[in-house]
Amino acid sequence: MTVRFGLLGAGRIGKVHAKAVSGDANAKLVAVADAFPAAAEAISAAYGCEVRTIEAIEAAKDIDAVVICTPTDTHADLIERFSRAGKAVFCEKPVDLDLARVKACIKVVDETKGKLMVGFNRRFDPHFMAVKKAIDEGRIGTVEMVTITSRDPGAPPVDYIKRSGGIFRDMTIHDFDMARFLLGEEPVAVTATAAVLVDKAIGEAGDYDSVSVILQTASGKQAVISNSRRATYGYDQRIEIHGSKGMVAAENQRPFSIELANGDGYTRPPLHDFFMTRYTEAYANEIASFIAAIEKGATITPSGKDGLAALKLADAALQSVKEGRLIKVD
Amino acid sequence: MTVRFGLLGAGRIGKVHAKAVSGDANAKLVAVADAFPAAAEAISAAYGCEVRTIEAIEAAKDIDAVVICTPTDTHADLIERFSRAGKAVFCEKPVDLDLARVKACIKVVDETKGKLMVGFNRRFDPHFMAVKKAIDEGRIGTVEMVTITSRDPGAPPVDYIKRSGGIFRDMTIHDFDMARFLLGEEPVAVTATAAVLVDKAIGEAGDYDSVSVILQTASGKQAVISNSRRATYGYDQRIEIHGSKGMVAAENQRPFSIELANGDGYTRPPLHDFFMTRYTEAYANEIASFIAAIEKGATITPSGKDGLAALKLADAALQSVKEGRLIKVD
Amino acid sequence: MTVRFGLLGAGRIGKVHAKAVSGDANAKLVAVADAFPAAAEAISAAYGCEVRTIEAIEAAKDIDAVVICTPTDTHADLIERFSRAGKAVFCEKPVDLDLARVKACIKVVDETKGKLMVGFNRRFDPHFMAVKKAIDEGRIGTVEMVTITSRDPGAPPVDYIKRSGGIFRDMTIHDFDMARFLLGEEPVAVTATAAVLVDKAIGEAGDYDSVSVILQTASGKQAVISNSRRATYGYDQRIEIHGSKGMVAAENQRPFSIELANGDGYTRPPLHDFFMTRYTEAYANEIASFIAAIEKGATITPSGKDGLAALKLADAALQSVKEGRLIKVD
Amino acid sequence: MTVRFGLLGAGRIGKVHAKAVSGDANAKLVAVADAFPAAAEAISAAYGCEVRTIEAIEAAKDIDAVVICTPTDTHADLIERFSRAGKAVFCEKPVDLDLARVKACIKVVDETKGKLMVGFNRRFDPHFMAVKKAIDEGRIGTVEMVTITSRDPGAPPVDYIKRSGGIFRDMTIHDFDMARFLLGEEPVAVTATAAVLVDKAIGEAGDYDSVSVILQTASGKQAVISNSRRATYGYDQRIEIHGSKGMVAAENQRPFSIELANGDGYTRPPLHDFFMTRYTEAYANEIASFIAAIEKGATITPSGKDGLAALKLADAALQSVKEGRLIKVD
Repeated sequence: MTVRFGLLGAGRIGKVHAKAVSGDANAKLVAVADAFPAAAEAISAAYGCEVRTIEAIEAAKDIDAVVICTPTDTHADLIERFSRAGKAVFCEKPVDLDLARVKACIKVVDETKGKLMVGFNRRFDPHFMAVKKAIDEGRIGTVEMVTITSRDPGAPPVDYIKRSGGIFRDMTIHDFDMARFLLGEEPVAVTATAAVLVDKAIGEAGDYDSVSVILQTASGKQAVISNSRRATYGYDQRIEIHGSKGMVAAENQRPFSIELANGDGYTRPPLHDFFMTRYTEAYANEIASFIAAIEKGATITPSGKDGLAALKLADAALQSVKEGRLIKVD
Repeated sequence: MTVRFGLLGAGRIGKVHAKAVSGDANAKLVAVADAFPAAAEAISAAYGCEVRTIEAIEAAKDIDAVVICTPTDTHADLIERFSRAGKAVFCEKPVDLDLARVKACIKVVDETKGKLMVGFNRRFDPHFMAVKKAIDEGRIGTVEMVTITSRDPGAPPVDYIKRSGGIFRDMTIHDFDMARFLLGEEPVAVTATAAVLVDKAIGEAGDYDSVSVILQTASGKQAVISNSRRATYGYDQRIEIHGSKGMVAAENQRPFSIELANGDGYTRPPLHDFFMTRYTEAYANEIASFIAAIEKGATITPSGKDGLAALKLADAALQSVKEGRLIKVD
Repeated sequence: MTVRFGLLGAGRIGKVHAKAVSGDANAKLVAVADAFPAAAEAISAAYGCEVRTIEAIEAAKDIDAVVICTPTDTHADLIERFSRAGKAVFCEKPVDLDLARVKACIKVVDETKGKLMVGFNRRFDPHFMAVKKAIDEGRIGTVEMVTITSRDPGAPPVDYIKRSGGIFRDMTIHDFDMARFLLGEEPVAVTATAAVLVDKAIGEAGDYDSVSVILQTASGKQAVISNSRRATYGYDQRIEIHGSKGMVAAENQRPFSIELANGDGYTRPPLHDFFMTRYTEAYANEIASFIAAIEKGATITPSGKDGLAALKLADAALQSVKEGRLIKVD
Repeated sequence: MTVRFGLLGAGRIGKVHAKAVSGDANAKLVAVADAFPAAAEAISAAYGCEVRTIEAIEAAKDIDAVVICTPTDTHADLIERFSRAGKAVFCEKPVDLDLARVKACIKVVDETKGKLMVGFNRRFDPHFMAVKKAIDEGRIGTVEMVTITSRDPGAPPVDYIKRSGGIFRDMTIHDFDMARFLLGEEPVAVTATAAVLVDKAIGEAGDYDSVSVILQTASGKQAVISNSRRATYGYDQRIEIHGSKGMVAAENQRPFSIELANGDGYTRPPLHDFFMTRYTEAYANEIASFIAAIEKGATITPSGKDGLAALKLADAALQSVKEGRLIKVD
């Protein structure tokens, strides 16, 4: 079976997914839609697919699945529309920044027996997957404590910050998902601190740029997350899992594995400076997993419910900062 | 000038300090006292010093300084007695497990213009000192976030746990001191989680074995501490400082720096399995610093006030766990 | 301009190049030829190109360049035929195992003003390229000593060994090319030792499986090469350049950058176990470089002369082993 | 039993051994002799031993063993005198720079049933010892190929070079000993290249500063040695052993294990810049081993014969460079 795709949104991340779909032996990119005709035309020219309207893709009989890469505020509506249209849906995170809206959307997906995958790409990074595999094979025993370090190379423009839903919903949400993925037990309590240390303009926009979070599960497992909007040495993405029998950790990635030594010491190059180069393989694996799940009729993970769970933790973290206390999560 | 020493307590850590004092060109070990004559005799034989009573050392004219390595519950009394006797005092941490008792003791030290150094040995580890030096030289800009990982190779006996004052006062206290040392600004708020994941008997004794702590300063700097009473791979002691211009980190130490490669992968040996082998150089540097400060009439650091500040953070962390909220520290 | 390609040979390495050509925006795979129709058909199906005979490709007006992936003993003939036919030629190494034959072939390329690139893929590995860039930027000063470690995961079948031309012409030849590439000065003398330590059958076939080589240039620069046909921990590929101002080295690559710690120590996974996964990026970069050179009319490197120079070093190494002396190379 | 020591030579390395003997629970430093009274007095003051003449130490009944740290050209004579006097002898390398003189000296040691240890300190480095232990435990199977990298931080003064016996007898000799120690089989052939790349004055003095050597054993095992008199990044001391089942390697050591990351990349400090700080533990272990062997009446290793074997390899390497051929060693 070949899974036939429509692509909604032909921007930066849309291009990444267009390439992944086109290169997958079990998938075909049939059509692309974008509010900017030039963007859609570029994808069309590069991968030999048609340019259509969203409505045409919705109604199309030659399309089995869509990839939603449109602006965040359109995600929930499009998920609902395409679930109702019987298409499998891959949607970039987040489903929505508002918890109630996410819940309503997932309800529609459930009612329509829709298939929804949410784009938590890090679950598909080969190094993090190897960490998860080591855990699942019991190589570190029972998971006890997780440490996630996630620092961006630099702060985004304040305009982006204003639309982002805040650092917990925009940046930490990836770490909340990873923590859930790796802990193997749902967090039931969140405590967090937050500050503006990198860029005052971020504070003026009502957000933070440097946060620390502790998640705790019912059995006492703990995950610590450390985030900053700036890391001069590149995109710092590490996870470390401490268990009853040992520890497993994923190291940072850099484009060039060389080392230069002189009187100043031994120097390795900076890390990747962009999430799309750091997670190139993750993006490809993610879409491949979506295609494989559709083909086999398998359960799709991470689902809308995973998106919801991560958003709840983000909201709780923000509340913890505001109220100076530990927040229970249901 | 040669600083002439009396050693109070000839146990495990007493031996370490006896060796350090004896090997220091500017110091001389004159006498040792211990409730167990055999322990004192062993030190006497090894380093050629006299065995005396505590009272005799207190009254001695040929002794300038003492090293207190007796049980914790005698520390505060001995500090007061020897401060009154005009001796410089090096005391193993903690001064006392009770905050009020520590305050009273420090008051006596101040009134007698005593010289007191508290044994936070990690400040003298060459690797952590190199980290501190890099910060002080401005190599990472303004310090923003500190991550401290501290895991013991294995949990101590429950008998020890019962007398320890609890994990925050016994184990995390070293990390509180390091956080203060490295942040360059006093923490004003503490939030912590704690659980029993390693050994139920520790929980039955009213303590925890796995804790996560966030400290925050007035300007928003954050330090995250992760502690476990068990690390199967050895004594895990790492610090990492994230600043406005970069990051500096101290790696773990292992006794043998070799790597073995075969079909299972590349394997390096476990870390040190004991704090005394891990911190051998730190113990020697610590006493050398004490001796040098006495000789030069310089300020002694870390002082009793540093011991007090760390204990306040420990008490606040425990309160945060009990009350599920962020605790402000004055 | 789009460079239109014919692929000669649809085996393992042929597939790699077919993919690289197809994925390059400036190239098009027009036709494939293979003695086994099924192999050619597979490439045709996967990339939408025609199946043709070698003769048809030779005569084709819609083909600008060919990639030769046929058996070694056909390389020189095909290079000559396609140079005469006016096609740019990319040929897998070696041009031939016989020095005289290589010289004759290069003569034809020169006479026909042909464009020939020889497949020394390692020059295009991003990590080795970064090493070369550091040298070219003067970051280690004048190059003085090069150390190349190259060990295969396991010995090839004896049938392969028999046709291979021997370890120096088959395996070390890559290292000879890298040494020339990195030294920046031609080796003028070769000394080598060789033994059978891995597999007696290799010795019975008249070859060696474990060799050490020293190359020396006129100014005294030295390159040391260490080869083994077996490395239980994977495909071991390291280079290290020592210069007047410092050293630069390229580390090994592994598929998963994780580390597992327990009572046995800290373990990272084995290296890549296959040259085609280790050098995935190198193969893609290599073809891209060939395409770019054709497009721009730029000089093609590494050329047939580079293939010749490496073969001379291989022959000299073998002679050094046989005669127990240093061999001068012109 | 306490082994009572006389120290001959109170210079730089004499001080190191004086400290090691004094700090050993099973040894006592009784006397020191030096041509410069001030040097001997300094040792006497620091460790409480007597200053005596060499003759007095030779005749002394309260001395069981001597440590010879005098200039190289006195070594062989002193070894003979003290062997005849019935003292156990530890002598810094080399026994002598002349092969015939070394043989004659060892003959005297044998005739007098003397006990002689030669100061190849690297055998006692804890990291290299751990490598040797891994080999002896069979963890890498049969040893096949050894790679030794040994680079000095900087070239010594030409005056030293002139008295040194040349780089092979002065510097590479340590690597020859390590190769013999690790190969587990005697080298029977040597091939070497040498050049002057660091300092022309070294060449004018008739020596080399950059050399590469291959040793080969009867069964075909190979050891490659790479030496330079200059490494801007510190004292570069690595060994790597490739065996039938795997590889084991000892990494470089640095005084501070920290890493600094910023826009220029990740930087670790330079290595040790001096052999005495790099090999601090090795020097202490070496003397402890000598003392333990005397106490237990055990065989002393490395012996004079080890010194002789290494010198033969050094002479053969020099001959190989001069004659441009592989040199057989008996």
